[in-house]
Formats: sequence, C-alpha cells, structure tokens
Amino acid sequence: MHIFNDLTDFSNDEIGSLLELANQLDNYPEPDILKGKVLALLFFNSSLRTLTSFQAAMSRLGGGTFVVSPDMSIHGLETQTGIVMDGNAAEHINEAIPVIESYADVIGIRAFAQRRNLKEDLEDFSFKNLINLTSKPFINMESAINHPCQNLADWKTLDDFDIPKKDGKFVLSWAYHPNPLPLAVPASTLNMAAMRGMNVTVLRPDNFELPDSVMEKAKQIATVSGGSITETDNHNEALQDAHVIYAKSWTSSKYYKERDLEYEARKDLIEWRVKDSWFNNVLPSCRFMHCLPVRRGVVVDDSVLDSSRSIVIHEARNRMLAQMAVLYKMLK
Amino acid sequence: MHIFNDLTDFSNDEIGSLLELANQLDNYPEPDILKGKVLALLFFNSSLRTLTSFQAAMSRLGGGTFVVSPDMSIHGLETQTGIVMDGNAAEHINEAIPVIESYADVIGIRAFAQRRNLKEDLEDFSFKNLINLTSKPFINMESAINHPCQNLADWKTLDDFDIPKKDGKFVLSWAYHPNPLPLAVPASTLNMAAMRGMNVTVLRPDNFELPDSVMEKAKQIATVSGGSITETDNHNEALQDAHVIYAKSWTSSKYYKERDLEYEARKDLIEWRVKDSWFNNVLPSCRFMHCLPVRRGVVVDDSVLDSSRSIVIHEARNRMLAQMAVLYKMLK
Amino acid sequence: MHIFNDLTDFSNDEIGSLLELANQLDNYPEPDILKGKVLALLFFNSSLRTLTSFQAAMSRLGGGTFVVSPDMSIHGLETQTGIVMDGNAAEHINEAIPVIESYADVIGIRAFAQRRNLKEDLEDFSFKNLINLTSKPFINMESAINHPCQNLADWKTLDDFDIPKKDGKFVLSWAYHPNPLPLAVPASTLNMAAMRGMNVTVLRPDNFELPDSVMEKAKQIATVSGGSITETDNHNEALQDAHVIYAKSWTSSKYYKERDLEYEARKDLIEWRVKDSWFNNVLPSCRFMHCLPVRRGVVVDDSVLDSSRSIVIHEARNRMLAQMAVLYKMLK
Repeated sequence: MHIFNDLTDFSNDEIGSLLELANQLDNYPEPDILKGKVLALLFFNSSLRTLTSFQAAMSRLGGGTFVVSPDMSIHGLETQTGIVMDGNAAEHINEAIPVIESYADVIGIRAFAQRRNLKEDLEDFSFKNLINLTSKPFINMESAINHPCQNLADWKTLDDFDIPKKDGKFVLSWAYHPNPLPLAVPASTLNMAAMRGMNVTVLRPDNFELPDSVMEKAKQIATVSGGSITETDNHNEALQDAHVIYAKSWTSSKYYKERDLEYEARKDLIEWRVKDSWFNNVLPSCRFMHCLPVRRGVVVDDSVLDSSRSIVIHEARNRMLAQMAVLYKMLK
Repeated sequence: MHIFNDLTDFSNDEIGSLLELANQLDNYPEPDILKGKVLALLFFNSSLRTLTSFQAAMSRLGGGTFVVSPDMSIHGLETQTGIVMDGNAAEHINEAIPVIESYADVIGIRAFAQRRNLKEDLEDFSFKNLINLTSKPFINMESAINHPCQNLADWKTLDDFDIPKKDGKFVLSWAYHPNPLPLAVPASTLNMAAMRGMNVTVLRPDNFELPDSVMEKAKQIATVSGGSITETDNHNEALQDAHVIYAKSWTSSKYYKERDLEYEARKDLIEWRVKDSWFNNVLPSCRFMHCLPVRRGVVVDDSVLDSSRSIVIHEARNRMLAQMAVLYKMLK
Repeated sequence: MHIFNDLTDFSNDEIGSLLELANQLDNYPEPDILKGKVLALLFFNSSLRTLTSFQAAMSRLGGGTFVVSPDMSIHGLETQTGIVMDGNAAEHINEAIPVIESYADVIGIRAFAQRRNLKEDLEDFSFKNLINLTSKPFINMESAINHPCQNLADWKTLDDFDIPKKDGKFVLSWAYHPNPLPLAVPASTLNMAAMRGMNVTVLRPDNFELPDSVMEKAKQIATVSGGSITETDNHNEALQDAHVIYAKSWTSSKYYKERDLEYEARKDLIEWRVKDSWFNNVLPSCRFMHCLPVRRGVVVDDSVLDSSRSIVIHEARNRMLAQMAVLYKMLK
C-alpha cells in the first residue's frame, strides 16, 4: 500500500485484511517492527485525536514521529503557484512538502476544504495538489472530502459491536452546530457504510442535503455492495429499527459560500440535537457514534453520550489501531 | 502501582524502593524495558521541566510520549459538567481524557488550582474530577495541592547529599515573588520532609501562613515519622543550624480570592529574598534547594544560586530519574 | 567529538570521515545504535528543517528527542546576567540550559544574532555564553555567525553531485529579500567552500559586502586549501564557468543597526534575483543551491527552482544525514 487517501480505493477484502491486522496488532504488539522508521505529520488544520493517535500508533510499532502543526510560528506555508512571495509566507509547499517527506518514510497530511468553490472541494482539488508533491507513502489525515482513517476506524467499530453488514440500518444524522463544519466526515462515512453493505439513511433538514455527487457515489457503491441509500428529514421514518445512529454536523452545500445565508438556514435548527427520544423506536442494541470532538448539549445530549449506547471512546481508540494497520502495511 | 497522585499515599519503604530503582536506572540503563509503551502528557498549565523530563524519562526506557499542551490551538477543553457547549470549547474533558488515555499505557495530568475556593483547592476537588475520568495508570504532574514527582525528586536529592533524616533540619521558606504562586509545592514539600522524619521549620511572614489543614496533616505525619513541624517569621530562629533551606514563594491563603489584598500583603515583602546572610548560622554543609523555575534577584540572590550550596540543577535532574522509577513500576 | 559549533574547527579529513559515516548510515541503517539516548533541542528562534531533520535523525538511530521552542508560552528565558528578574521572564538560562541538558545526552541550541553590535555578533559573543553553560556534547543549530549542520550538509551535497573541489567554481550570490537576514549562512558557507578548496566568488551589490573579518578568515582558509576567494558586483564575471550558484540573502553589515538605511540600501535591488539568464555562461552541469526556506519569485525564479539544476531538496535531505553522522560520532 502506497497511498491511503480514500477508503473507496480499496476492496472490501483489502479493508477486511487491514482490520484483521489492526486487531492482531492490538492483541499481539510488535514494538520492534518499524524501528528506525519515521512518520511525518503535516497539519494545515489543528487536530487532537489525529495528532495523538498517530504518534501513539508509531510508538507502539517502534518508530518515531515528527509533527509540523499550524500552531508553529514558522508554519505559514504558501500554497499558490506562480506567486511572488513578498508577503508573510517564508516558504512554499513546493519545497516544504518534498523536504519534510525526505526526512520520513511515510507522510500524513491534513488540509481542510478551501471553501472557495464547492465543486473544487468535492473533487479534493487543492488536496490533490498536495499529494502530487509527495512520492513517499502518503496518508490522508482529512481533506476537503475524505477522512479514510476515520472511516477505517468506524468500520472496525461497527464490526467490534457486531452491527450487521447486510440489513444493518445505519442512520447518518445531521445535527446542529454553531459553525459550518466540513463535508469530509459525512461524505466519506456515507461511502464507508455503503461499502459495508448497510442500509443507510441520511437524516437531514432542508438546505442540508449532502451534495448530489456525494449521494450518487454512495448509491453506486450500495448497488455493488447490496446496501441502499435513502434520505429524509423525517426522524420517525429514519430512526425506526436503526442499528446505529451516527451523528455529525455539516455545512449547507446550498449556501456553501454565503456565510450569512448558511447561518440563516441553520439558526432555527438548534433543536436538531440527538436526544433520548431519538432512540424510542430503534433496535434495542442500537448504538450512538460520533467522530469527536462533540459539543455536549449542542450536537447531542449528555444523557445519550453518557449512556451505554454511546461507543464514541471505543470508536476514537480504533483510530489508533486502524492507523497502526495502515502504517504497518505501508512500511513492512 | 496504578496511581501516583500524592506522596503520602506511599509508605517510607515504598518510597525507598522507588528511589533505589531510580538510582539503578541511572547507573544501569534499561533502554528496551518499555519499548512499545506510550505515555500521554496532558497539560492544562504550561511546563518546562515536567514536559521535558517526562519525555526524556520515557525515551531512556524505550517508550514513546505524546503531549497535549495548552499552547495548542485545539486545547480549549470544557471542564464543567452539564453545560451547553455553545461557546469556544469544542471538546469536553469527559471525552478528551478517556480518548487520550485510550492511546496510552499511562497518563500524566497537570492542572493547577482553580482559585475559586480555597477549601475546594485544598481538597483537590477539580483534580479528583479529572482523575475520575481515567482508568489507566495515572500520574499527577502538579495539581492544586500535590506535586508528587517533585516530592520524590526532592527526597532523592536530600538522600544524594546525605542530608540526615532524623534530626535533619529542613527550612521551608517563603520568598517574595511578583505573582501569587500555587500551594502545591510548599504543601506537598512539607509532607515530604515530614515523612522523611526531619525537623521542619516553615519560615514565612504574617499573612503567608500555610493553611491550617496543610499544617495539621504535616504534624500528623511528623508524629508518626519522628520528625517535627514548627513555624515562625523569625529568620534567626528558623535558619539556625539548618541542613537545608528550601525556598518557595506561595500565595496568601488568607486573601486567596482577593487579588488586591493579596498584593497589598505581599508588596512590602520584597526583601524576603534568600541572601548570603541567611546562611550565617546554618550548618557548614547547609544546602539551598528550589524546585525551579526561580527568579534571580527576586526569590534568591545570584550569589546563593551560583554558590556550591545550591543543588537546584541536581534536584531538577532527579525529576527525570524519579519519574523513570514511577513509570517503570507502573508499566513493568 | 564533543562540540560541533564551527565547521572550521575540523580538518578536511575529519569532515571526510563524517560524510562517509553519513553515507553509510543512509545505506545501512542502524536503528538500535542510539537506543535510550536523548537529544535536547533548544530553539531561541523558530525552525522547520532543523527541528524536523534532527527529530528524524535521532529516530533513525533509535534515540529520542525533546524540543523547547519559542512557540511555547513558557519559553521567555532571561539571558542577561546580574539582572533582577521582576519582569516577564520566569526562568534564567543559567538554570534552564543546565537543567535541559541534564535530561539529555547531547544538546542542540539555535540562537540568532542579537544585532546589538556587529563585532559581538561576528565573534558569536552571546552564543558562546550559551555554550559556556553546557557540559554535555553540544551542537550549534545556527548562531549569529555559524551554521555547521548546514555547512556539512552542503559539503555532502557538492560531493554527491561530483562538483570538483580543486578548480571548482562556487558562486555565493547575495539575493534580494524583504527582510535583513542573518550572516550565519553566508559567512559559514564561504568558509565551507574555501575549506573544500574551491574557487569562491562572492557576488553582491554595493553595501552588501560581507564583513572584512569574514572575508579575511575565508582567504586564510583558501590559502591552506588551495582555493581562492574573490568578490565582485559583476554578474557576468562572477557567473562565467560556475559549477554552482549558491544563493542567499543577507543583511548589510554597513548598516547593521540602522534599519532605515539598510532598507534604503536594499529597496532598489529587487531585481537581484536568481533568474534563468544567470545560467547563460555557467558550465552545462552548473547547479543551483539554497539552504531554504526560499521565497519564490523574490530570491529566485520558479523556473530556476523547478529546473533540474536545482538540488535544494537533496541539499535539505542531507541535513538529516549530516546530523545523523554528528550524533553518531558524539554518542558512540
């Protein structure tokens, strides 16, 4: 494996093999396997889980990690091409990325959507420009439209809790949030659940439909996997007999560039928050998932997050295990 | 050992065994012993010695460390319970701490006093709430009232310089500082010296008495250990025949919440600074200790700090060795 | 090797041996050789390459690294002696450096020129004060006047591309930059090329001559090595038959303390930028080097940097390899 950019680049067999490896590394540590190897982490956006889980993953396999984060005063990297760099940026990504990866055996990059243009972001246009600067094994640590490490960890979490693939009902629900959040997690989670063969219902209010191209891709995947994709704004319909509720806020792609209209569309949806009542008609074993960080009392009630339905900590720990498997496959 | 939160939770024998281990690891390195193991460091307050000495300690034992520091833009963690998180904080400690520790084999946390309420701080109320969120081995890296890593290092330092346990005179002296500093070091240092069986004199001006509960606890410890606790504002009396002067500034617990009154109480004490003259009637071998960082010319004169009496660098190095022993005991 | 502060402290044989070791470690990794060893990195000025390449170097040899950077809120270290520390600084370098190095087996320090006084900076006055506080193996990570890690990496780069020692023409060219940059790289690069026995031409505009003492030292070195040192403001003369163009902006030492005059002297030199036309009369194999970071379109045109002449990424990777050799020699 050389590039881990998009979960849909892999077959279900390959994903199964990665998850088997993740479990194996959890149960039978291999603390020498990557000794002398180096992971570079380049963040254009901040991180807690990704930052810490990658460092832990690499340590558990015997390797080392260095981090370049946006909190560093040196960080202001220029990303535009053909520019005269007489402003604040002292270095261009055309040098920074090849240099950083030259010190490493594998590089992870996080760079969120630019939000200049929905179409560009859906195609991960600027992220692909970053990838093109690399030649070493590469890991997407969240781009405008992909978050494969989260997806792999979530797949493992569904497996760990015996949530069925075929005929498993996966509800991906929008939730209120004070800020317009990225599309990477909902879009790539939709693909993950579709690949897994589940019946996925996207529960979202008007104006917060996922982009057509995202829905189309997931439907094509579901056709192959034997799953299905539906969408609704009706909670009762969506939540009936659910195996899992996966909550996530995301921006309106209708008002992608108009911050004021997006805010108007969102401000009356404050009650679109995961509550105990959402679980009235789900299956008894129904679980609650969220990729974290999550705002308590805003995205989800404390009572849900603190209940045994919530598996968000297990899900977060699986980030480390999934990433260990990816690093292992890339470097061994 | 699962929890290293308060030195007084351990017997003198257990402490002796930790210090023996610290010396052993200093003389006979074990660079493979913790390979594949991970230490998480979570700082709610900044650090230089603790941050660097823990990373070095873990490296020397073959393990890895990751750090979550208040300098990270992502850091604003919500600590209050039952709150609607519609403000700046994007994540709650109820998720952050279990997630961070899920990546690690042991977690260290630093969180200073909230200073909302003296009684709560003396009972380490908010820190205990943090500990309650952990299930892995846990290390207190300084709370409102405890700093066991410093205490263990200081005990070792006293041993290293053959400062007697029984009949050793330990002077814990307040010193001037422009800011009202925490109680954790003086309170826990008092306990450490008392456990060690020393005759402890607390030298402090009016208004800067240590809290009654702190003095009472230390006296009870001294009763068992064969040491003693006295307090005075008289330098001559306090410093006569001292084996060690341990300087530290601390806040007034009388004016704990009234910043203006605390400042008034402190501002005329600028000459309460460790000077050469303090050593006029001490024992010839008397040493000067301080946990660092120390303000030169404010807390202590250069001439003292630069003399052979000062053992502050040795003391600081012992932080690393003491922590290596704790990590070893917890993880092997 | 105990101190790596100035490349000119070493003989050509010693440098040859370091570079041989660097190549050997590149081709035959030794991931266990420094296990349990710790590198401390203390930055008074920010860094990207030095920070990341040292961490990677140490990981590849099996050791660990901790970093103290100016981005840390705790960082404000007092450097003046005899001062009453009643201001912002909470710790003095007289404590901080011995403490930090006490946790490590080797310490690297970066501290740029103070720019209070050219003579002091040329003698590395304040940096020598820092070195005097250390007793462990010490690495200069760029001071007012030296950057030996860069010099060693550059020497290796010249070797890697078969650029001749004797009769090799090395053009060190000033370039425009919006800010007055330090003298460490140009001064120490001049020495490096002179030691290597090359014919060095310093190409610079009026007012941007390198200081006399810098030129004199390089000439003495060249006398021994069989190389030569000339300077000119004439591009045609300088670039004719060049084997390598090494670009770097640097401050005017004539207006070292007068920011306004320095700016005046610089502002009309915006066209002093490495362009394709600079390569009209060089040797066919002529290479372009720069220590990075570099401002595209300001210091050098994209077309040069993106051409096969540019070896800046190879040069930057050699930082890691050169530092691995230094760490190895110091600690084994």
